[in-house]
Amino acid sequence: MQGTVGELGEFGLIRELTSRLPRTAAVELGPGDDAAVVSAPDGRVVASTDVLLEGRHFRRDWSTAYDVGRKSAAQNLADIAAMGATPTALLLGLVAPAELPATWVLELMDGIRDECQVAGAAVVGGDVVRGDTITVAITALGDLQGRAPVTRSGARPGDVVAVTGWLGWSAAGFTVLSRGFRSPRAFVEAHRRPEPPYHAGPAAAQLGATSMIDVSDGLVADLGHVAEASAVHIDLRAADFDVPAQMADIGQAVGVDPLTWVLSGGEDHALVATFPPDTHLPSRWRIVGEVTRPAGLSRTGTVTVDGAPWDRAGGWDHFGA
Amino acid sequence: MQGTVGELGEFGLIRELTSRLPRTAAVELGPGDDAAVVSAPDGRVVASTDVLLEGRHFRRDWSTAYDVGRKSAAQNLADIAAMGATPTALLLGLVAPAELPATWVLELMDGIRDECQVAGAAVVGGDVVRGDTITVAITALGDLQGRAPVTRSGARPGDVVAVTGWLGWSAAGFTVLSRGFRSPRAFVEAHRRPEPPYHAGPAAAQLGATSMIDVSDGLVADLGHVAEASAVHIDLRAADFDVPAQMADIGQAVGVDPLTWVLSGGEDHALVATFPPDTHLPSRWRIVGEVTRPAGLSRTGTVTVDGAPWDRAGGWDHFGA
Repeated sequence: MQGTVGELGEFGLIRELTSRLPRTAAVELGPGDDAAVVSAPDGRVVASTDVLLEGRHFRRDWSTAYDVGRKSAAQNLADIAAMGATPTALLLGLVAPAELPATWVLELMDGIRDECQVAGAAVVGGDVVRGDTITVAITALGDLQGRAPVTRSGARPGDVVAVTGWLGWSAAGFTVLSRGFRSPRAFVEAHRRPEPPYHAGPAAAQLGATSMIDVSDGLVADLGHVAEASAVHIDLRAADFDVPAQMADIGQAVGVDPLTWVLSGGEDHALVATFPPDTHLPSRWRIVGEVTRPAGLSRTGTVTVDGAPWDRAGGWDHFGA
Repeated sequence: MQGTVGELGEFGLIRELTSRLPRTAAVELGPGDDAAVVSAPDGRVVASTDVLLEGRHFRRDWSTAYDVGRKSAAQNLADIAAMGATPTALLLGLVAPAELPATWVLELMDGIRDECQVAGAAVVGGDVVRGDTITVAITALGDLQGRAPVTRSGARPGDVVAVTGWLGWSAAGFTVLSRGFRSPRAFVEAHRRPEPPYHAGPAAAQLGATSMIDVSDGLVADLGHVAEASAVHIDLRAADFDVPAQMADIGQAVGVDPLTWVLSGGEDHALVATFPPDTHLPSRWRIVGEVTRPAGLSRTGTVTVDGAPWDRAGGWDHFGA
């Protein structure tokens, strides 16, 4: 595929993009009409939207178009899994500069398509418009298969807090890239292409999870949302987290406590959930803390680590400094 | 509400935005969690995405934030109606500069909310990020209530072509605004805030429409998509269109044949559908042409007006000149 987005034109680009998309059983009507039709056998549909901007959420010199596609899709599909739902479909709104090589957009779509495939979903529609900043707006849909959605508000005192997936890997990779390095490869790759544990979402719902969230802003920050919505206190035990030796090595090399990455690093899209204390959790879930009653009205919604506030680079406000 | 988007911050802004949103019966879980849950009683969900950019799709000096909200939502909700579905929900991805007054965003949301209300839908979720260009990425969802979707590909030779809604009003208003005028008000208003005939979409499906599309790029251009997808020829009769006297006056004043606005003007989001010739159409549908067999392979997918090609300013390619 030669040429730029502008040379290919809107309709040419859309034709190329849609020709790369396989359909799944859930797709009743794919791209090319006014709207897509997606199976929603549960009688409800789970839906989430995220917007990613070049320069803010990804850099073309750090990530390939394919990786940006994988990551953009992963971020949305993980939100569906975090409700205990199975992703079914994804829609893409894309802003692309006219001078952008068409191959960049097609590789982006390949990445989105492949991440969808990992999660069991299909790209069913989208929109492409010309603009100055590459902008990827994704909406993911999912099906609850008869289960109740697992929200942020159901955590109860006495529940255990458990995580599955990767924690801190993306943040460690980001630190490495920020300092001009391209290795260790595993962490750089984790930053470029997160691997959310999609299947663990519906599985957690079946196991009786009382609340769940995907870790996009950092574990402590995201658990803060759970604590607030559930009106509970959450205490994490630092010693119960797995800090891989290689991550500790990077931490030492760059002067960062790797626990900061694990507890405050976002974008790995791990899942964290609360379960009744007697739940028999499969080994891929790691218990890292517990839910307690807030000590007073003022402490509602707080998260502590080993009983103390955690204030190292927590959370991520897209309009903050 | 004082201050800018940057001063309010992402979470503050989202809190303000969601506090303005009523829920409908279709909303099982609204904004504030990883994803929303929307009722899909049909067992299928209809979904469509559009992206609008400041400077390209709207201008802040021509339209209020409220009108941009109305129009952005209308554009998407009309896509749902054009499938014969009833809109149920909408998700908003918003890029906003930090220095943008927060009131602009809140009024945008008021417009989106009110347009959703007209269509019977509710805003169920979204994302807000900081960026240079105001970008509104909307995904609309809808329910087919047991009907088959009305696609672009079902038109058959012998069908009549019928339209409902406004045609050419937005384009006439755009011409007026482009020349520095603010009146006639009805056309300027039509450009700022289209009024898609949402209810006519499901009604057309019930009447047995064989194909349908919403007029976003211009009637001839959009019928071209129908003709191509259905492998038919479509001939429109110019005399059967309603050109209001006031539109004719504007045309004379600015030296434009108003039929150009009616046949090539987009953004009114009228609905155009094909029906079997014996269909008893309610009066709000106007028959303006017919579907015929293509004369030869080369004529598949063509649209003519009174038997001749229509080449005046047709269509709209977002990457074109």
